[in-house]
Order: sequence, then C-alpha cells, then structure tokens
Amino acid sequence: MSRALNFYAGPAALPLEVLEEAQKELLDFHGDGVSVMEMSHRSKTFDEVITTAQANVKKVLGLGDDYETLFLGGGASTQFAMIPYNFLKEGLVANYIDTGSWSTNAIKESKKLGETNVIASSADKDFSYIPKDFKVDSNAAYLHYTSNNTIRGTQYHFIPDAGNAPLVCDMSSDFMSKEMDYSKFSLIYAGAQKNVGPSGVAVVVIKKDMLSRIREGDLLTMLNYNTHVNKNSMFNTPPCFPLYIVGLVMKWILNKGGLKAIEKMNDEKANVIYGAIDNSDGYYRGTAAQDSRSKMNVTFRLPNEDLEKKMIAEAAERKMLGLKGHRSVGGLRASIYNATSLDAVSALADFMKEFKSKN
Amino acid sequence: MSRALNFYAGPAALPLEVLEEAQKELLDFHGDGVSVMEMSHRSKTFDEVITTAQANVKKVLGLGDDYETLFLGGGASTQFAMIPYNFLKEGLVANYIDTGSWSTNAIKESKKLGETNVIASSADKDFSYIPKDFKVDSNAAYLHYTSNNTIRGTQYHFIPDAGNAPLVCDMSSDFMSKEMDYSKFSLIYAGAQKNVGPSGVAVVVIKKDMLSRIREGDLLTMLNYNTHVNKNSMFNTPPCFPLYIVGLVMKWILNKGGLKAIEKMNDEKANVIYGAIDNSDGYYRGTAAQDSRSKMNVTFRLPNEDLEKKMIAEAAERKMLGLKGHRSVGGLRASIYNATSLDAVSALADFMKEFKSKN
Repeated sequence: MSRALNFYAGPAALPLEVLEEAQKELLDFHGDGVSVMEMSHRSKTFDEVITTAQANVKKVLGLGDDYETLFLGGGASTQFAMIPYNFLKEGLVANYIDTGSWSTNAIKESKKLGETNVIASSADKDFSYIPKDFKVDSNAAYLHYTSNNTIRGTQYHFIPDAGNAPLVCDMSSDFMSKEMDYSKFSLIYAGAQKNVGPSGVAVVVIKKDMLSRIREGDLLTMLNYNTHVNKNSMFNTPPCFPLYIVGLVMKWILNKGGLKAIEKMNDEKANVIYGAIDNSDGYYRGTAAQDSRSKMNVTFRLPNEDLEKKMIAEAAERKMLGLKGHRSVGGLRASIYNATSLDAVSALADFMKEFKSKN
Repeated sequence: MSRALNFYAGPAALPLEVLEEAQKELLDFHGDGVSVMEMSHRSKTFDEVITTAQANVKKVLGLGDDYETLFLGGGASTQFAMIPYNFLKEGLVANYIDTGSWSTNAIKESKKLGETNVIASSADKDFSYIPKDFKVDSNAAYLHYTSNNTIRGTQYHFIPDAGNAPLVCDMSSDFMSKEMDYSKFSLIYAGAQKNVGPSGVAVVVIKKDMLSRIREGDLLTMLNYNTHVNKNSMFNTPPCFPLYIVGLVMKWILNKGGLKAIEKMNDEKANVIYGAIDNSDGYYRGTAAQDSRSKMNVTFRLPNEDLEKKMIAEAAERKMLGLKGHRSVGGLRASIYNATSLDAVSALADFMKEFKSKN
C-alpha cells in the first residue's frame, strides 16, 4: 500500500497515526470486545471517549470552565441557521462580514430569521480579500465571520473587533491551525472534516454566558443550544465514530506540542507553496490578495485552462489528489491542512517547478 | 481478541464481516491511497459509495424510482422537527399515535409548529401495548407512528391504515428487520445506529410526491427536504464514514438473502428469548403485552430488583453487554437487532435458565 499525497479540500487528510490507531482497535475497543461503533453512547467506555475529547478541545484552544464543547450533527450548515435562530432577538440586528461562499450562506439563513446587516463584504473584488474596515452596530446580536474561505483561498490573519457584541466564528477550514486568543470568541464552530476529523460532526465551542442570550419561546429542541449544553452533547445519540476520531486528533495535536507547533508547521508549508508560486515569474498566479492569503487552501491559476487540466491530470498520475479548484472558481487549489505533511507540500512544489519547465 | 455478546440498545451490534471489511480498507480505500474518511465527498470514488448505498436501501425495501434515499445528520430527533416543519400546513392537522418515548418527543415538536392531534395512545397502560383503534382526521397532514419502542419493548406487527393521508414512520429501532409492503409509506426515517449502521446518520426514504406537499415560504435550508433531495444528499458534506458503513450493511443484508431471510433469523431469535421468559414459571416477566412484543428489544423483569442487579452483573462477567433496562423503566432489556446472532441469543437464554435455577 502506498499512501497518496492528499490535497483534498475536505473531507481531507487525517494523521496517519490516528488512522492506524482507529484501524487497530476497530473490532475491539479498549478490551470491551465490541467496536467503538457498537457500544451505547451512555456506556462507561464511551463516556470516557466523549468527555476526554470535550476537555481536550478546550485544552488545545486554551479555554477554561466558562466554555462548553458540543459535538453536533448536521454540519456547519446547520449552525448557519442555529445561530440566528437562538440569538437574533427582536430589536437586535445580526452583523455579518461577507467573504463569500460560506459566509454568504450563513447570511442567507440569518435574513430568514430577523434583521441582518452585512457590515463589510469583499464581493466587489470577487471575494479575493479580507475586508478590514467595518463598524459593528450598537444593537448587534453578534458579529459573525468566516475565518477562512476554502473556495477563494482567503484567510483572516487578525481577530475582528466586535466591540461589545459577542464574536461568532465559522472556523471550519482553519480550526486549530494556529495559536490565537480563543477567549475573544463567544461561539466557535467548525465542521470537523477539514482540520480535526472526518465529516459528520460539527465541533461547537460556546461560552456559557451565551446561554442567557437565547431568545424566549418554545424553540425546536434540536436547534436549541440549551438542549445540547444541558445534556453534555448527549441529548440524542451523537455521531459517535466521527467524534471518537476527533478525540484521537486532539491527542495527536497535544502530542505534537499543541497549536504553537502546529502553526509553525503550517507556516513552513505555506511558505514552500506560496514560494513556488511567487518565484515562477508569473507562470503561477495566486488568486487571493497577498495579505489575505490562506495558509490552508492555496488557490492559483496557470497561463491557460488547458495547462490547468494537464497539470491536474499529471498530478493525479503522481498520486497527488484533490488539486482541482472548486467548480465555482476554476483553477487549482492545494489544501494543506494540519495533517498534510511538509514532505507532501515540498513534492508538490517540486512538481510545480518541473511542470513549468516542461510546459 | 474475543468478541462480546452485544445486547446494546443502540449504538448496537454490527455484522462482523462489515467491521472486518472496514478495518481492512481503513487506510487505503479502493486503491486510492487514502482512507474513505479522507476523500472529497464529491470525488468519483465516494460518489460511487453514496449512490450505491442509496440504490441498495431502496433495493432492500423493494422500492422504485418514485422514492429517494437521503443520508442526513442530526439523528432521528431532527426528523421529529423536520416533518411538521415541512408538511404541517395551515388548515391541516398532524396526526400522531403515541406509544411513548420517541413518539412523545415527535409529538412535542409537532405541537410547536401547528395543530396536532394524538389520535391514539397507550399512555393509559404505561405504553405496554400498541393501540389498534384510531381514526385519521379527514384533513390530516400525515399520520406519524413509531414502529418499535426501544425502551418499552413494544412493536407494531401491522401497518396502520392512514386512509388518504401520507403515512410517516419512525422506524429507527426496527428498520429493515422484516418484510413489509414499504410502498405504503410516504416517508420512512431511521437513525442508523440500531439495525443498519453506526450513529451519526439518519436514513430517510421519501416518496417524491411528498415534495409537492412542502409548505410555501422561505424554509431554513437544512430543514427543507427539497434541499437534500435536489442535491442528492450532497447539499453539504454528508456524514461520509457512517453512510459508508450503512452501504456495507446493505450489501450484507442483500448477501444474506434480503429481508425475507433477515426476518426469519429475527423470528428465531425472538422465539428463543421469549421462550425462555414464558417457560420460566413466572420467574421472568415480559413487560409488553403479548401481541405487542418487540422482536428487537425484549424487556423483562425478575422477582425483585436485587436479582435484576445481580443478573446484569453476572452477565457482564460473561461478556454479555447492554442488558440493563432503560433508566426510565428499570428491569432488563436484551436488544437483538439484525446483527446479533442466534448463538448470542441462545447463550443468553441458557444463562437465564441457569440463573433462575441458582437464584
């Protein structure tokens, strides 16, 4: 078996050590004689899985007892609706920054539920940059932003100032990729399938004081954050296998030295690949503004579409997977999340040089 | 490694062959050099996984092109809300039969969303039986029932007549356990974690003509069945690993000979264990009415609670897992879903005889 070089945008590469551990214990979890997929979520063995994973999410982020970790189904897309459904009360206005794709979808749900103000947008330049000027409304229910745009290859390299409003962030595609002051956030959510696990579970980190901001009324049970916080993510059967893998990834991050070490690796990888773009005399053109370039999703174009197709095909022959850009923007995209190795990225950079010299 | 005898109520036993196949290909799926967890849900390889699984769900149930299979996150509990959210229009009334626990929760969500009529209930006898007399409202949006109650150990052994109203069923805990005329249903849903897979995915089988019954208005995207049908369950990233396992279980069912063969095995298992109860001179007492006994979850009591505790503890020493009854009802419960073998059930019946003779 030879492992491919995995540049998929998501679901994406997982640490090999995590996969090997999951494989080893797939038929007999911790000596119980059943798979981790076959045991009650309320068994002592699984309770240890979920509570350890919850604690380690907060440990990685440097957060304390004033936060709760939830593992929810329905993906980040369900969070787009849950946030305004819970927090957009009469008399308040939801504030959003629109950096395309996912933030646009989040805004769409908010508008169905109440007054919504898009206080900044990079739509004017095809979402190729991160807007820096905005003013949060004095009656803002929250400020929502998307920290990394998987499709456009843009990323925030600062934390927006939400003033007195709670700061809410969709971190799906750069969650746990770098050190930050995570205590500035009131609610963080992330589909696991980019940086921290397989698809099927959204990690939600919520500051407890947000619960008092949930609107009155008889909310639908599964859409109410209180339901999940009160029952420790066990109101209903959680996505047990996906969250078990997230737990293994948390241990992998901690063993690597936490987010400081992870960030260093991610910076090195980004330097290698953006270096290959910037030192190509314009053969490769990055599509994101320099100061907004994503260290997770590197989007670039070649001189023409025929060459782009050729490069993607030749890359696939070399077992470099997932380099085709999102269908809505074209070009190439190399996703280099936490679990993608520097070796894989260096191999891609070498191939880029070689391809340029031959074409 | 010795496998335990798995009587968990859910997540529950999976076929050993399915686990072994998943284990074997966990690091390299179909020669792609990545795990099935690590590939884009839009890759050619994964597309084959999902479309085959969708087709096989319908094949097992004997359904044709007038039905769609969806794989959704959020569990059956999210379906409790989605059904009235989509179909309970102004002027119509949702009809429910209350057999406890899950149906009670489904009714709760419906009442938040519109006029709801509980047309039959077995609450009068502690949900120990399946009500047979009811009249569906002429303006019913649908008739909803729960085909098996995991906690009370009751099960429908007939399909309720919904008249002209669409028939909607939560089959979570007896899905694909027997032959039936599934074309009588307009919508079937099931959390996978009892009979057909791990937790984290709900299988929804919806008749296409139901889409025209969805109410007008700007529904929340993820709660709208149209969203998922229009995009073939790929509007957002689906729970890829759980649905991949469901796909393997579908192949296992078809290889066994389909639902006819599965039903025969389930009947044999149920006969063995109810035989052990009925031939115990009253030492073991089944809690469900005879004609409503579940072939999936066998609930029973011993002469006193001390003996119940002792039996559960001694069973655990013999690696018989999950025999403790649900905390809300006490006693013992043996869940004997599709993947629990006749050998496991016979071992339990033997142990019941032995325990009785010693205590």
